[in-house]
Amino acid sequence: MTRGQEPIEKLIELLARLPGLGPRSARRAALHLVRKRDLLLAPLAEAMAEVARSVRPCLECGNLSTAERCAICADPRRDAAQICVVQDVADLWAMERSSAYRGRYHVLGGLLNALDGTGPEELGLPRLAERVREGVSEVILALPATIDGQTTAHYVADILPEGVQATSLAQGVPVGGELDFLDDGTIGAALRARRSL
Amino acid sequence: MTRGQEPIEKLIELLARLPGLGPRSARRAALHLVRKRDLLLAPLAEAMAEVARSVRPCLECGNLSTAERCAICADPRRDAAQICVVQDVADLWAMERSSAYRGRYHVLGGLLNALDGTGPEELGLPRLAERVREGVSEVILALPATIDGQTTAHYVADILPEGVQATSLAQGVPVGGELDFLDDGTIGAALRARRSL
Ligand SMILES: [Zn+2]
Ligand SMILES: [Zn+2]
Repeated sequence: MTRGQEPIEKLIELLARLPGLGPRSARRAALHLVRKRDLLLAPLAEAMAEVARSVRPCLECGNLSTAERCAICADPRRDAAQICVVQDVADLWAMERSSAYRGRYHVLGGLLNALDGTGPEELGLPRLAERVREGVSEVILALPATIDGQTTAHYVADILPEGVQATSLAQGVPVGGELDFLDDGTIGAALRARRSL
Repeated sequence: MTRGQEPIEKLIELLARLPGLGPRSARRAALHLVRKRDLLLAPLAEAMAEVARSVRPCLECGNLSTAERCAICADPRRDAAQICVVQDVADLWAMERSSAYRGRYHVLGGLLNALDGTGPEELGLPRLAERVREGVSEVILALPATIDGQTTAHYVADILPEGVQATSLAQGVPVGGELDFLDDGTIGAALRARRSL
């Protein structure tokens, strides 16, 4: 637009790249931020800088954390014999909101897909296979009911050693449904009714 | 949620306060930001800090600017004999996108409203009256067709000195329509067909 407005133009351009915000809602958001400079804009700038600085994937499970091992991996009260495999961190958060699960996680960060070149290595599956050998008795595959999701679930089930049970969320998960869209009770019910693969 | 996630929890909580983002889209946005740490998260944190630091209302017209006088007020090619009165900066941006207007602005930052205590002082109307005395020949009232908008328009028209024409956008502006929702051509047509109050 005009010279003196460059920083706010830049802010709008970046806000418009967030999922769910278009150019118009990015302009509205930028004006809202300027109006709430002390209550929202400055704290949000600081929160973003802090996340950029300190939040990293947990070396063990892929959850986001400020520590090398996330709070779930570091919590001795979480059952180390169960690992729940999820597509991404949003799904881990959805599982946690259901309060139905007391084990640990493996966050894939994607699904097996030959076309886009996502293989077992990209999803940390060798690392998962290693973790499973350390006293894990059950791997819960909480993956989408899509072709890629089910391909990935069966791949993981196949690499598990003898004696480790592979289960999947069953009752209540709609076909093609993503965990993050479900209410917490549905997730809890699906977890309790999980079945062997 | 859990300890090691505090910075991202804080980020989600703040993002959810943006207009157009709820808790769920705030979580999606936060994960998107972490995934695009270098391309989006860090630049956005910096852009927000820069806006918080440097962007202020123009002392003359109320537009947002990094300078005391905004680029429009400082531009000698803009017609100083015309002032367009708008409710907020989003409306100024909408006028600018239409490229139909080459005068200057007065940004009210609100509308007259006895109930919420918004009076002429809050809207900078004494300052506008002063500016008008310095060689302004026309004041274009580009205000919403709501009761508060029209009350404000008539108040401004009444305080203008003899010989200063008050006009309003006419053709093409839908009743109750906000400028920022209109396409650029509609704004241009309404501006060209403006009528005397
Ligand atoms: Zn972890
Ligand atoms: Zn100005």
